[in-house]
Amino acid sequence: MAGKVYLIGAGPGDPDLITVKALKALASADVVLLDDLVNRELLQHAPKARVIEVGKRGGCKSTPQHFINRMMVALAEQGQVVARLKGGDPFLFGRGGEELLALRAATIPVEVIPGVTSGIAAPANIGIPVTHRELSHGVTFITGHTQNDQTPDWRALVLGGTTLVIYMGMKRLASIVTDLLAAGMAMDTPAAAIHQGTLPQQRHVVSTVAQLPMAVQQEGLTSPGIIVVGDVVRLAYSKGTLDALEVAA
Amino acid sequence: MAGKVYLIGAGPGDPDLITVKALKALASADVVLLDDLVNRELLQHAPKARVIEVGKRGGCKSTPQHFINRMMVALAEQGQVVARLKGGDPFLFGRGGEELLALRAATIPVEVIPGVTSGIAAPANIGIPVTHRELSHGVTFITGHTQNDQTPDWRALVLGGTTLVIYMGMKRLASIVTDLLAAGMAMDTPAAAIHQGTLPQQRHVVSTVAQLPMAVQQEGLTSPGIIVVGDVVRLAYSKGTLDALEVAA
Repeated sequence: MAGKVYLIGAGPGDPDLITVKALKALASADVVLLDDLVNRELLQHAPKARVIEVGKRGGCKSTPQHFINRMMVALAEQGQVVARLKGGDPFLFGRGGEELLALRAATIPVEVIPGVTSGIAAPANIGIPVTHRELSHGVTFITGHTQNDQTPDWRALVLGGTTLVIYMGMKRLASIVTDLLAAGMAMDTPAAAIHQGTLPQQRHVVSTVAQLPMAVQQEGLTSPGIIVVGDVVRLAYSKGTLDALEVAA
Repeated sequence: MAGKVYLIGAGPGDPDLITVKALKALASADVVLLDDLVNRELLQHAPKARVIEVGKRGGCKSTPQHFINRMMVALAEQGQVVARLKGGDPFLFGRGGEELLALRAATIPVEVIPGVTSGIAAPANIGIPVTHRELSHGVTFITGHTQNDQTPDWRALVLGGTTLVIYMGMKRLASIVTDLLAAGMAMDTPAAAIHQGTLPQQRHVVSTVAQLPMAVQQEGLTSPGIIVVGDVVRLAYSKGTLDALEVAA
């Protein structure tokens, strides 16, 4: 009997922000491979599944990617239905592409179930649309946690004028802001940081990009978090120093 | 009795790609205000709701935005629970921000329920992760349907090197490709177009950016569709001319 792997986006945190399709896959799963940032409440939807924790939180020792890939292949070859449950969306900074390639190379049947990404949901939860007529015609999602010393082309990103949403950037925030200002971004560009977006423990600050690192420190916000930079931040429900910029309806 | 408005993302098309939270809101709705591109199957989840079609498909005559805003406010002021159901995510090219501001200005209680966006889900459905280690460190979502003659800064977008995902660009595809090439994008940059992503009638082509308009025309692909440009397109399940670029796992 052939097994199968579902690469599933668990959504941004709130357990109700998972899709119906993901719940159906979880219900059929024999095994769940679980990332750190996935809400444990979701496991109730996989009643017959064995749960294996394979967290890879940035900076910590954890299961290497190639080991996760081999485990998924081995389980599926044993005929098991594997639910690979990842925070947010599996293909937006989720390394789902690497897992998909490994599964395809082993000719394992695989289905990708996209999820609500925290880069949209966390800003939305404090009133910020990542695009908004007359304020932003586009949005760029980047990661602050650089792999292989890859650095985004900050100057091009600033020139592009899209809303910037930065994942995994809380720890490197001061350095990211320095890069943005050096790349020509105006110091008073509105910016926000949202910790644990969509969860009950969500907290956020709104500030200017230049003052964001200090505001984040003063509020004691830590990882995991989402950083948003751009004029759309003016629409945030106020928690910070931008009230004077409030945009009328 | 106070009414309420839910601004709901219906997801990319597949009716199972809606969130559990959205279903709960629909179940409580007295009225559903429905966009064109929302899957009608979702209405079964709003059994007690009156349905009002307020489609605003690009280019066609339809309900003006300010009229939709006023209708939501009026219904909520009558004490009704209003589900404003929009394709994809309400805050990514969904004009949800404008609706949120109108509701806030009228002090109507409002809750935003994010959705899976087609710019992630449609590429995922043909094997393309919008970000992928060593191929793309970020992704930019833009619209090809320009408002107020706003044009994206194509040169900055090309320089930035992020994956480009273009919404509502099928009709203007030839012009968009001309802009991208004029902005310095390599002609052989991989590109794909996906029509009706995640639905049974989904169709797609994979090509180079220079040849994409011809490939789309030959396959007869039309709106609605998502365009993806960047090296991640090499990972697509083949339907086109990029097989020689196949990336090993």
